[in-house]
Amino acid sequence: MSYLKLDINYANKTLKKDILPMQQKVCEIHEMIHNKTGLGNDFLGWVDLPNKIQKELPQITEAANKIRSQSEVLVVIGIGGSYLGAQAGLDYLNNYEAPHVEVIFAGHQLSSTYLSKLVRYLEYREFSINVISKSGTTTEPAIAFRVLKELIEKKYGKDAKDRIYVTTDQKRGALYQLAVKEDYQRFVIPDDVGGRFSVLTAVGLLPLAAAGYNLNEIISGAMHAQNRYFIDKLEDNEAYQYAVLRYLYYTEGFKVEAIASYDYELSYLAEWWKQLFGESEGKDGKALFPASANFTTDLHSLGQYFQDGPRFLIETVLSVDKVASDIKIPFVEEDNDGLNYLAGEKLSYVNKQAMLGTIQAHHEGGVPIMEIKIPELTPYSFGYLVYFFEKACAMSAYLLEVNPFDQPGVEKYKKNMFKLLGKPGHDK
Amino acid sequence: MSYLKLDINYANKTLKKDILPMQQKVCEIHEMIHNKTGLGNDFLGWVDLPNKIQKELPQITEAANKIRSQSEVLVVIGIGGSYLGAQAGLDYLNNYEAPHVEVIFAGHQLSSTYLSKLVRYLEYREFSINVISKSGTTTEPAIAFRVLKELIEKKYGKDAKDRIYVTTDQKRGALYQLAVKEDYQRFVIPDDVGGRFSVLTAVGLLPLAAAGYNLNEIISGAMHAQNRYFIDKLEDNEAYQYAVLRYLYYTEGFKVEAIASYDYELSYLAEWWKQLFGESEGKDGKALFPASANFTTDLHSLGQYFQDGPRFLIETVLSVDKVASDIKIPFVEEDNDGLNYLAGEKLSYVNKQAMLGTIQAHHEGGVPIMEIKIPELTPYSFGYLVYFFEKACAMSAYLLEVNPFDQPGVEKYKKNMFKLLGKPGHDK
Repeated sequence: MSYLKLDINYANKTLKKDILPMQQKVCEIHEMIHNKTGLGNDFLGWVDLPNKIQKELPQITEAANKIRSQSEVLVVIGIGGSYLGAQAGLDYLNNYEAPHVEVIFAGHQLSSTYLSKLVRYLEYREFSINVISKSGTTTEPAIAFRVLKELIEKKYGKDAKDRIYVTTDQKRGALYQLAVKEDYQRFVIPDDVGGRFSVLTAVGLLPLAAAGYNLNEIISGAMHAQNRYFIDKLEDNEAYQYAVLRYLYYTEGFKVEAIASYDYELSYLAEWWKQLFGESEGKDGKALFPASANFTTDLHSLGQYFQDGPRFLIETVLSVDKVASDIKIPFVEEDNDGLNYLAGEKLSYVNKQAMLGTIQAHHEGGVPIMEIKIPELTPYSFGYLVYFFEKACAMSAYLLEVNPFDQPGVEKYKKNMFKLLGKPGHDK
Repeated sequence: MSYLKLDINYANKTLKKDILPMQQKVCEIHEMIHNKTGLGNDFLGWVDLPNKIQKELPQITEAANKIRSQSEVLVVIGIGGSYLGAQAGLDYLNNYEAPHVEVIFAGHQLSSTYLSKLVRYLEYREFSINVISKSGTTTEPAIAFRVLKELIEKKYGKDAKDRIYVTTDQKRGALYQLAVKEDYQRFVIPDDVGGRFSVLTAVGLLPLAAAGYNLNEIISGAMHAQNRYFIDKLEDNEAYQYAVLRYLYYTEGFKVEAIASYDYELSYLAEWWKQLFGESEGKDGKALFPASANFTTDLHSLGQYFQDGPRFLIETVLSVDKVASDIKIPFVEEDNDGLNYLAGEKLSYVNKQAMLGTIQAHHEGGVPIMEIKIPELTPYSFGYLVYFFEKACAMSAYLLEVNPFDQPGVEKYKKNMFKLLGKPGHDK
């Protein structure tokens, strides 16, 4: 029995007829991944990361404890893969236990309003900083770190260095050098793990630990998934099934995959997923456009389009079986809104029926639907789900015959920007 | 000179060669809109709403003043068009003046966690409620209102009715009847204005006024736009030009339009835009899929896909000329991050160059780009922009030959849901 289930009852495809015929191709790619023989094979460190990272957990947890003892706020400076994984985890676990430190992100955009407000907010609060960057020169986080480093040094003087945690390259780069010089506590972004695959390194784990979540549970879930998805037999590997399905839809002319969830805790997981698949696959003119919808909210905005728009859309529903807290619908004598038939029922029950009714309606409207069933929103399932999508993404990108681990297109706007900004040496 | 500019330098189309040849078709539709002869002509009340709503502004402002005098928090209960417009405005104006009341939304989803947390949060705060629903029986807001009505009555006893503001139909419906019976202060959703076109009625205006924003300025901007876009001459009507362009792209096979902004204040305006266009156009198997991207954040996630993915994507950039607050990049002696070439520059300047560099890069990558230039994020420009998009949307949907004002697909999931929930009379 799999911990996480992939339900394809509304996918317009069957395991036997559509998915299993891809077994041989899947075996070939599985070998490529595990023998590191495919494109981008320098970046396969995430594959056995759940095992490897374990020895670092005590150090990360210790730093998290220190952050909590010193600070009310942890400012996490990072962008892209140095931001989305932790944000996804914090929202996902929002409801599981009360965070002990408020985690606020910075350097994930260039809004002056946001940064000004943050500076004012921090003036009256005890805070620490976790700056996350492989190179230390990415524009957005580097600017935010300049501004916030000045602030923390003004506030704490020589003790500031005791409140700055650096997650960066093991032995090179501007941020590495600064950290060594200033004697900041350092955590490593492994050379063989790209940004969008880094949530199970210190990149994602330190902010999550600071917020009070149990890293052993997260990694234990990820290890379970690592073992589960190590098998190449398609019939037993839901991550590969999901990859094969999205590949089949793509080859049939579908254009957009929307991740739909009915729990607002999952909205940043969808953002993380959009980077994972968008950046891994969107190259050489290929790939499904990754979109997201937060239902039932967006049933009242995008719902019409999903139901009756062009049929180039597939929908992947993230469903959660058990919610952590619940609320009962009150009985009202006069029943003016006609809701008494639901009185005493839990809100989560209504939400579930909305989901089931929508899956059915969208399917009848011609949208193929895959449902990924998550038992509950716990640190364990977060780790599991992250690994599920990472493994599926590698398989999916290799099926498209693209390099899952590069992002050549991201450099193009940077080149133009540096030229416009007059960066020294920009034309080299 | 137009207040708001549409820049099509990177659109791969020209006014003369591509847009103006559509003049006759545009004239026909313009007549349909203004003579109310097209599909859905019962719902054209938004066209001259900026004029008509003026007489209601004193009453709305007075209620807002009362809310501010009594409460720290205004809970706005609504979903879809009864939620997104106000949320878009609050974020848009976030930076313009400090809100006097914290506006929190409820009933825009079915999350039990969210509602439980809100109930706990309100226990120790003075609050009022603005419940917004045409019928009063929409499931999400009706449930939230049941829960929060119980809370406010428990807290304030007989005085609770003095803190409940109802925005609903003028003379019918469950919420209307309850409001009359309980003597709640009422505001009207006009019969001829659909939910997604209702932001410039009390639906959007009461929450915005309560938060402290000047309604006269919002409506003054909308009136300016109403006059500007009353002309049918395509050369002078940027709203129609935008509509024609998106229609042309659609007919050429483009599939997705992404609204991209570089200011996080615009992220909910993009959500509002997604409902406006998605629900107005996504029917009969037609329309561009409406997506959004918040740059520069999403350049580090979706950027790769925009740059090198399939070429079925068009990008509409919302650019803001002047930001309200700014922050300077500090000089750092050792310059380890190599940013000293930017020391003393404002963050908004860097953000602007990122935008210009990205527009160029995406255009070179084959993405047609339209840029909508907003002078600054003020109440005036918010009113103007809302009307711009509403007028453009009507033209765009009529060009697609769909009814811009219905949403038949939204009922389908509801039918299934009511059946699953066992709602009395669901099969009628």
